[in-house]
Amino acid sequence: MLDSDQMATKETFASGEDALIARYFKPLATDPGAFGLRDDAAILQARGDDIVVTTDAIVEGVHYLPDDPPETIARKALRVNLSDLAAKGAEPAGFVLTLALRSADDAWLSAFARGLGEDAGLFGCPLLGGDTVSTPGPMMVSITAFGRVGGGKMVHRSGARPGDRIMVTGTIGDATLGLDILKGGATAAALAADPTATEFLVGRYRVPQPRNALAAAVREHAHAAMDVSDGLAGDLAKLCAASGVSAVIDAPRIPTSAAAAAVLARGAGTIERLVSGGDDYEILCAVPQACAEDFARAARAAGVALCAIGQVVSGPETPRFLDASGAEIALKRLSYSHF
Amino acid sequence: MLDSDQMATKETFASGEDALIARYFKPLATDPGAFGLRDDAAILQARGDDIVVTTDAIVEGVHYLPDDPPETIARKALRVNLSDLAAKGAEPAGFVLTLALRSADDAWLSAFARGLGEDAGLFGCPLLGGDTVSTPGPMMVSITAFGRVGGGKMVHRSGARPGDRIMVTGTIGDATLGLDILKGGATAAALAADPTATEFLVGRYRVPQPRNALAAAVREHAHAAMDVSDGLAGDLAKLCAASGVSAVIDAPRIPTSAAAAAVLARGAGTIERLVSGGDDYEILCAVPQACAEDFARAARAAGVALCAIGQVVSGPETPRFLDASGAEIALKRLSYSHF
Repeated sequence: MLDSDQMATKETFASGEDALIARYFKPLATDPGAFGLRDDAAILQARGDDIVVTTDAIVEGVHYLPDDPPETIARKALRVNLSDLAAKGAEPAGFVLTLALRSADDAWLSAFARGLGEDAGLFGCPLLGGDTVSTPGPMMVSITAFGRVGGGKMVHRSGARPGDRIMVTGTIGDATLGLDILKGGATAAALAADPTATEFLVGRYRVPQPRNALAAAVREHAHAAMDVSDGLAGDLAKLCAASGVSAVIDAPRIPTSAAAAAVLARGAGTIERLVSGGDDYEILCAVPQACAEDFARAARAAGVALCAIGQVVSGPETPRFLDASGAEIALKRLSYSHF
Repeated sequence: MLDSDQMATKETFASGEDALIARYFKPLATDPGAFGLRDDAAILQARGDDIVVTTDAIVEGVHYLPDDPPETIARKALRVNLSDLAAKGAEPAGFVLTLALRSADDAWLSAFARGLGEDAGLFGCPLLGGDTVSTPGPMMVSITAFGRVGGGKMVHRSGARPGDRIMVTGTIGDATLGLDILKGGATAAALAADPTATEFLVGRYRVPQPRNALAAAVREHAHAAMDVSDGLAGDLAKLCAASGVSAVIDAPRIPTSAAAAAVLARGAGTIERLVSGGDDYEILCAVPQACAEDFARAARAAGVALCAIGQVVSGPETPRFLDASGAEIALKRLSYSHF
C-alpha cells in the first residue's frame, strides 16, 4: 500500500542530489528514453539515422557573467550546442546536462530549469540525463547534445570548393559588443542614450539564436558549414583550412545589426572587433554558386536572414577581408581563444 | 604546394585551444566518426543497436584531490562512466570529454592524455569529441560515454523481484578508506605499518575497476543492475525503490578486501562506513535464483569476483542489513550526497 508513511520512508534515502534532480529536471525529461531520470543511463534511438554528437560547456565568469539571469544561462548552455547541430545539418534529438553548482539555491535552480525546459520544448530537444555535482569554484554548465541526420549526410567543415559563395546567417559582432556593455566598456558609453540598442546587444550575448530552422537547407545545399562561435574571421579560417582552400570576403557585405552599426558610426568599435569577437552562433557556410538562389529562398521560407559575404578561392592563404575600396583589412586577431 | 611556409601561415590562426586539442587529444580520436577532432561534431553509428548514454563529472577537490596524478584523474573520469555502461549491460562505443582547465600545463596535459588514451584503448572506448574551456576555479572533467545494447536490452534499476539474489562484484568500501588515507584520517594511522594495504586502498580510490567484462552476463542474467557509486546501502535502496521491492542483506557476506578487513579489525572503520562510502564502482544486481549459478560461472570466466550478499523481498521498507547474529544494523547514513 502506497501511503504517506511509505513515502516518508523512501524520502529518507532520497539524497539531496536526487531530490534536486526529481524536483527541477524530471519535468524536462519528456523523452521515453530518459526513463524519468530514474536510471543510471538513457537510451537514444538512432531510428536508422547517424547520431551527431556535440559538446560545449559554459563557465561562470568566462562564458557568462555571475549575475546573468539563470534562465538565460540555461538557454545559452543549450543553444550553443543547438547551433552546432544546425550547422551540421542535424535535427535535434536530445541532450544530457552536467551542472556543477556551489550550492542548491532553489530560486536559481527553479529559474534555470524553467529556461532550459522552455528551450528544450521550443527546439524539440528533450533532456535525456545528466549529472549534478558540487564545486567550490565557479559554476559550470556542460551539455552534450545529439542530433540525427540521414546516413553520411552530416555537413562537414571540409567540403568548401573554389567558386563557392561564403554565406552567413543573422548579424555578426553583436554578442561581443553586448559583453562589452556588461563589462562597462566603450560600447556602453557609445549607446548610453539608446537603451533599445543596448538591450538588443546584451540579449545577443546572453541568448544566442541558433539557426536550427535552416538545418535542412544547409544539409541540402551547403558544401561546408560550421557555426560562428569564436569569431567570424577565425572560424572562416578554420573552415578554409579544413577544406584546403582560401576565401575573399567583401567586408562591407558582412551583416551587422543597426545597433552594431551605430556603435561603429560612433567610433566605439571596429569591423575587426566584430569579426574577431566570439559568441555569434550564426551559421557560416560555403554554398555552390548554382545552389545559392535555392538556399537563399529556403532561408527566407525558414525566416532566417542570410547574406553572401564573399567567395571561396584556391590557395593556402588565410582568408582576406577587403574594405569598400578593395584594400585588404589587416586583422591582428582572428578569434577568441581560451588559452 | 604544401610547404613549411604554408604550415606557418596556417599556424597563425590555430588558436591555443585548437593547438592543445591537436597535440594532446587528436591521437586518442581513433574512431572514424571523430573526424580527427577537426569538425564541430562527431558521428556515432548505432549499427542497429540502442545507444546507451551516461554522463558523470569529476571535480578537483570533490571527486579527486588536487595532487592526484593526472593519469589517474583521467582514468577515473572515464572509468566512472564505463562503470555505468557495464551495469547497464552495454558495450562501450565512445565518449566525449569536457575539460575545464585553469591553465594549459604541458606536463599535466601530457600525462592526463596518456592515461586517458591508455584506458580508451584498454576498454575499446575511443574519444569522439569534446570541449576545452578555461576556468578560474577548480578543474573539472566531464565525460559523456556511449554504449551499445541490442534493442530494448538495457538493464534497468527497476526489474528486481522478490526472491532474486542480490549480488555485487569486487570488494566494497575500499575507496572511501583510500580517500580517508589521503586526507590523513584514522585509516592512515591504522595502516601506518602496512604500506601495501595503504597503496591498495589509495589505488582503489584513484582508479576504479569498472566491470565491463561482466556486461554481457549482466545483460543475459540480471533482472536489475546499477553501479555502486554513492555507497552500497544508498544505491541498493535506490534499486529497490525503483523496483518497488525491499531487500535483506547478510552483512558478513559483503565482500571486503584484506586491507579493509585490517582497518576494521584495528577499530579504525565500521561496516557502516564501508557500505555508505562512495566511489566503489562495482556492479550491484538482482539475479533470479535460477540464473545465479550461470551468472557466477560467467563472472569466473570473465575474471570478475562476485558475491551473493542477500535477497530481494517484497515490501516498501528500506533494505535491512543484518549482522552475524541476525540483528539489524542501524545505518545512520546510506550514501554520499553532494547537496
